[in-house]
Amino acid sequence: MSIGIIGAGQLGRMIALAGYPMGLKFTFLDRSDQAPGAQVGNIILGDFSNADALAKLAREVSVLTYDVENVPVEALREAAGDVPVHPGPAILEAAQDRLDEKQAFADHGIATAPYRRVDSREDLGAAVKALGLPAVLKRRRLGYDGRGQRFLHEPSDLDEAWEALGDAPLILEGFVDFDREVSLVGVRNPSGDTAFYPLSENVHEDGILRYSLAPAPKNGPQTKAEDQMRSLMESYGYAGVLTIEYFEKDGELIANEMAPRVHNSGHWTIEGAATSQFENHLRGILDLPLGDTRPRGRAAMVNCLGGMPEMSEVIALPDVHYHDYGKAARPRRKLGHLTAIRENDAGRSDILEQLLEIVRRAEGDQGPG
Amino acid sequence: MSIGIIGAGQLGRMIALAGYPMGLKFTFLDRSDQAPGAQVGNIILGDFSNADALAKLAREVSVLTYDVENVPVEALREAAGDVPVHPGPAILEAAQDRLDEKQAFADHGIATAPYRRVDSREDLGAAVKALGLPAVLKRRRLGYDGRGQRFLHEPSDLDEAWEALGDAPLILEGFVDFDREVSLVGVRNPSGDTAFYPLSENVHEDGILRYSLAPAPKNGPQTKAEDQMRSLMESYGYAGVLTIEYFEKDGELIANEMAPRVHNSGHWTIEGAATSQFENHLRGILDLPLGDTRPRGRAAMVNCLGGMPEMSEVIALPDVHYHDYGKAARPRRKLGHLTAIRENDAGRSDILEQLLEIVRRAEGDQGPG
Repeated sequence: MSIGIIGAGQLGRMIALAGYPMGLKFTFLDRSDQAPGAQVGNIILGDFSNADALAKLAREVSVLTYDVENVPVEALREAAGDVPVHPGPAILEAAQDRLDEKQAFADHGIATAPYRRVDSREDLGAAVKALGLPAVLKRRRLGYDGRGQRFLHEPSDLDEAWEALGDAPLILEGFVDFDREVSLVGVRNPSGDTAFYPLSENVHEDGILRYSLAPAPKNGPQTKAEDQMRSLMESYGYAGVLTIEYFEKDGELIANEMAPRVHNSGHWTIEGAATSQFENHLRGILDLPLGDTRPRGRAAMVNCLGGMPEMSEVIALPDVHYHDYGKAARPRRKLGHLTAIRENDAGRSDILEQLLEIVRRAEGDQGPG
Repeated sequence: MSIGIIGAGQLGRMIALAGYPMGLKFTFLDRSDQAPGAQVGNIILGDFSNADALAKLAREVSVLTYDVENVPVEALREAAGDVPVHPGPAILEAAQDRLDEKQAFADHGIATAPYRRVDSREDLGAAVKALGLPAVLKRRRLGYDGRGQRFLHEPSDLDEAWEALGDAPLILEGFVDFDREVSLVGVRNPSGDTAFYPLSENVHEDGILRYSLAPAPKNGPQTKAEDQMRSLMESYGYAGVLTIEYFEKDGELIANEMAPRVHNSGHWTIEGAATSQFENHLRGILDLPLGDTRPRGRAAMVNCLGGMPEMSEVIALPDVHYHDYGKAARPRRKLGHLTAIRENDAGRSDILEQLLEIVRRAEGDQGPG
């Protein structure tokens, strides 16, 4: 069975590595034969939006999936005429637009921050009046890792923010003074089975995930989050892994955004769960029985941003696992991650501190970002 | 860092899959671009004994290893002039000849069955006189999975056995009426660190491994076996994984043979230990710190011989993992394996029975072997 993956980044690479033991074969579509996925699978060189390249990929494989969210939905819909595409184009379309995404959340009882659509400078003024400050102005489309957004602290910030972002459709979101950030990674197959990993606690720096702790040190409203995600998945006939990132405030979850794919905050599942999110994504899109999501101990996952630490220093630590995506170093770029498994929260706190010290030292070595 | 692997079988494939997260790259040397390793890495097409092909491989990589034992030692020695070869040619040479192998065992206090060298029909008669019957006549070189050997039950068996095997140097080994078979998988790096997995209990059928239980249900003489293997490794300046297969009789180990490589009886370590034998082989040959060999629960590994079971039936069982090597089916050929992790021996016994029933059904489906 051959799987086509649009995008050959680290997510696609880890999907392929999870799928080889299952006897699956992988062909990627991406622009570089040096991409992380291309190092471990076949590649068709081309842009995601290139209809010919997409059609060529679709002809070669039994099912299509993607590891990026900026795939043009129309091209995907066309490819879906020839071969199943999972997750389906409809939910990708919703995920690509923060306004549609919030509507999808609302349809399934998933709380979000208050928000207003902003298409003009006048809209922005009215939205700030309605929601108050602080608030966050965001591009509706193609923002990730904190790009394409501005915090508005006081009225004088509005002009500059409009100047920077006003060339595209925007949304203003009320600022959530959260206690912490968590995410839920779940999976569904077309037969309707679902499975969910325990909530992960995520800490970001400058809009980029720094580390995740899973299961989260303090339980969140796991069951409610699962019920809501299951309802959302049902309505889209979802297949594969879905991730929702939340703010948690006073024990309640407020959805920030969703990703219809495997997710950085689920990387801990490779060593930290009975079945990884990558294998479960494949099980989901192939309509296979879903794998056990039970955690093996307490996992800490730390991203390597802009520089990789020395492997020998990292793997000298017991039950610490090194993941190098094979990417060229660039400031703040996600080059790899480290995962430690410990028996209890205290042990996990200790190793987290050690790993953060190690990755920061390596990142500092790369010179100023 | 690029690793060259001579032989692109399932062992090489699993080494590469373990090495990709470490940021390593792999080039195989083998005769077919459909070989299991070639499906997940680069391949140079050629015979192991082809000096040009070996030299080409050596030029492309930083270190050479192998997943087969029938690599011509002279060719390997020549390649070792250009690039480190681990494990070294000397121990491979010993492992290729049952007589040298027994001498190597004896040098480190490792017990073996009594044996005699057999170069003629007369030698055979004298050897049987000395060791008694039953006994096992074996080719000294290139035997594996039960090939190239005959059981001698009574004097009238000698002529036919000589007829079948007498065209090559032989060894007669006293028959060991063992209680069970076990194996020790260990690893060493050039800095001299060693690590050992718990003994695995192995059950063979027709000379081919049917299943392994690890850690073994009943403890064997683990420490003594480790001390002896460490001594053997030291004397060869060993790097990488080494396996010794033993008969156990009245609580004592009697070495049957060694393999200077990762081993089928260590496949359980992928899910069943903190670090897999494949990752530890790479750590060993690269002189990196060795990984934690601690078991995660009680593992049962069952080989799929000649036919693969339906993946969906297998992976519907909790914490059961499917490994398909991507090989064409042939009777009795090792096509894949299944590994189950359970919390205790009772749970492991139950799932073992289930898995044996599943694989036998699939093997029966392939028609008579």
